[in-house]
Amino acid sequence: MSKLETTLEKIEPVDPALLDKAQKRLDSLTKPKDSLGRLEELARRLVGITGDLSFRVLKKTIFTFAGDHGVADEGVSAFPTEVTRQMVFNFLRGGAGINVLSRQAGAEVVVVDIGVDFEFDDAPGLVKRKVVSGTRNLRIGPAMTREETIRCIEAGISLAKEYAAKGAVFGTGEMGIANTTPSSAIVSAFTGLPVEEVTGRGTGVDDKAFRHKVAVIEEALKVNAPDASDPIDVLSKVGGAEIAGIAGLILGAASLKIPVVIDGFISTAGALVAYELKPAARDYMIASHLSVERGHKAMLERMRLRPLLDLDLRLGEGTGSAIGIMLIEAAERIYNEMATFGDAGVSERSS
Amino acid sequence: MSKLETTLEKIEPVDPALLDKAQKRLDSLTKPKDSLGRLEELARRLVGITGDLSFRVLKKTIFTFAGDHGVADEGVSAFPTEVTRQMVFNFLRGGAGINVLSRQAGAEVVVVDIGVDFEFDDAPGLVKRKVVSGTRNLRIGPAMTREETIRCIEAGISLAKEYAAKGAVFGTGEMGIANTTPSSAIVSAFTGLPVEEVTGRGTGVDDKAFRHKVAVIEEALKVNAPDASDPIDVLSKVGGAEIAGIAGLILGAASLKIPVVIDGFISTAGALVAYELKPAARDYMIASHLSVERGHKAMLERMRLRPLLDLDLRLGEGTGSAIGIMLIEAAERIYNEMATFGDAGVSERSS
Repeated sequence: MSKLETTLEKIEPVDPALLDKAQKRLDSLTKPKDSLGRLEELARRLVGITGDLSFRVLKKTIFTFAGDHGVADEGVSAFPTEVTRQMVFNFLRGGAGINVLSRQAGAEVVVVDIGVDFEFDDAPGLVKRKVVSGTRNLRIGPAMTREETIRCIEAGISLAKEYAAKGAVFGTGEMGIANTTPSSAIVSAFTGLPVEEVTGRGTGVDDKAFRHKVAVIEEALKVNAPDASDPIDVLSKVGGAEIAGIAGLILGAASLKIPVVIDGFISTAGALVAYELKPAARDYMIASHLSVERGHKAMLERMRLRPLLDLDLRLGEGTGSAIGIMLIEAAERIYNEMATFGDAGVSERSS
Repeated sequence: MSKLETTLEKIEPVDPALLDKAQKRLDSLTKPKDSLGRLEELARRLVGITGDLSFRVLKKTIFTFAGDHGVADEGVSAFPTEVTRQMVFNFLRGGAGINVLSRQAGAEVVVVDIGVDFEFDDAPGLVKRKVVSGTRNLRIGPAMTREETIRCIEAGISLAKEYAAKGAVFGTGEMGIANTTPSSAIVSAFTGLPVEEVTGRGTGVDDKAFRHKVAVIEEALKVNAPDASDPIDVLSKVGGAEIAGIAGLILGAASLKIPVVIDGFISTAGALVAYELKPAARDYMIASHLSVERGHKAMLERMRLRPLLDLDLRLGEGTGSAIGIMLIEAAERIYNEMATFGDAGVSERSS
């Protein structure tokens, strides 16, 4: 079996009995039952995902996958394609949004060149796993071959294994000029929703440019006719290298029982591919935030994931994941560090 | 003039020109415009509040005001009143939710006995500013005298002055068995909304107990007939010592240009009193989260505050403030630490 096949086979749904055990501990803590709401839900899920009734967050890693997109030739983004590589350098120097928020969260940022149209020298913090030097223009034909796509997914799976550790929590992120275009195409392909309803303005395009973007995606879906029952087909024809890498990272994390925080629109497109390949993978995903990008909500609903935050973010890079990881740590600390009614000598409710 | 009067006089609306200056800096950073949404809004507000174009968060303090309530005699809470003092001991030992989240946020927890029906010995972390040993039962008559109420507010103002420092950020919190009852009474008094619409289940009461709680609050409003045009009258008749302390802390913070993060339902009742006394005080408030408690939303809307988080929290203590402070720090770091387009050599949008 291939690495992808063995990984898919290893992914199992979370055992609900673990959630109940975690809830018993939460109910013994000095607070009214359920009064910490979604932090308690997160704590239960962390125990369920890891199978560890005294799980602690020990190693936080955010993977920012970078790739270029042939479809940028169609003028679907307000930024030139060089910005992908320029932002990779910005990540490596620590000056980008993801660096700032990861420092606060205590997370390491791993920048993965999986598909940038530029040859990087070796640099600390850069992981070189290039599969393509930018995808082909998906308006005209498939963005990647099936074989390239599987190599991107498997690169993500390998990274999950390399960074696996006791107490590991992963976050996803990405950089790729024009990558909201393949993401919208993926949502439309899987959900059947009209392109217009799942396409946003990306990094700031105007009305005319928006209509053009919708037309490009509609043509891409018509020309490529991706088969929604074959997620690899969808991903190769209308996806991107970084989206495939994210799908692989998530599948790898799920196979290793590592919680993985999903960033916004583009990361969630990768998560959706992982889900379509193996629905149980969603049990390991924690949706950090609801993006401003239209189409994000449709994906989260399809996977029955409720985002933690709604902060009008649409930067990507993993910035939502970094904040999500802060909430994960809050939940974990509540679960592990709060005193119980017994320890603290606090009376329980009278009724 | 009294301390309260001079404080009210010092509070000025935030200068919108400062927000524009902060936005100019945000727009120079390596990200599409507005792509960090509410974090950018927070950064603008921090600059506006402090008047410091290079504001940094240097000292985080959460004030957890504790007080008892005579109305607990009416059986409006599922927990016995001893829990107020027991939880104060839990705070001082570091075992409560607020301690856990404050440790993560790097905030100091200051526990203020402003109205607990118990004599505490001196202890590190406890600030003794007792004005009443529990309020009187507001179903029967005024919870406090006007003079006691002003003393509670002025205790909060004094604390704001004592903890003021360069880079200070405050958060509010409280502990007081039965204190959702006065909070609902305050909302109803100011907004005119029916008690039933602004009363929640507090720390877990059932249907019958809920109807009883509503009846108690309705009677309190009838018996006391608080004058909504006189916030001190409302606060003294149907409020509580910790709610008054919070109102004072917020007024003090606003007079000193210190950002103050508001926790949930009860803290927001204190914030509402501050707002009714001086509407400009709302410019200094940052609403951390939307509580599960009904009536919270009505207060936030009245003050035109949009909460940052919606995590189904209803613990109080300042737990929402602690998470809100993490987001404030995120916003401040984004504002100060991100590279600009020029510094990073990243191309700006082509259009």
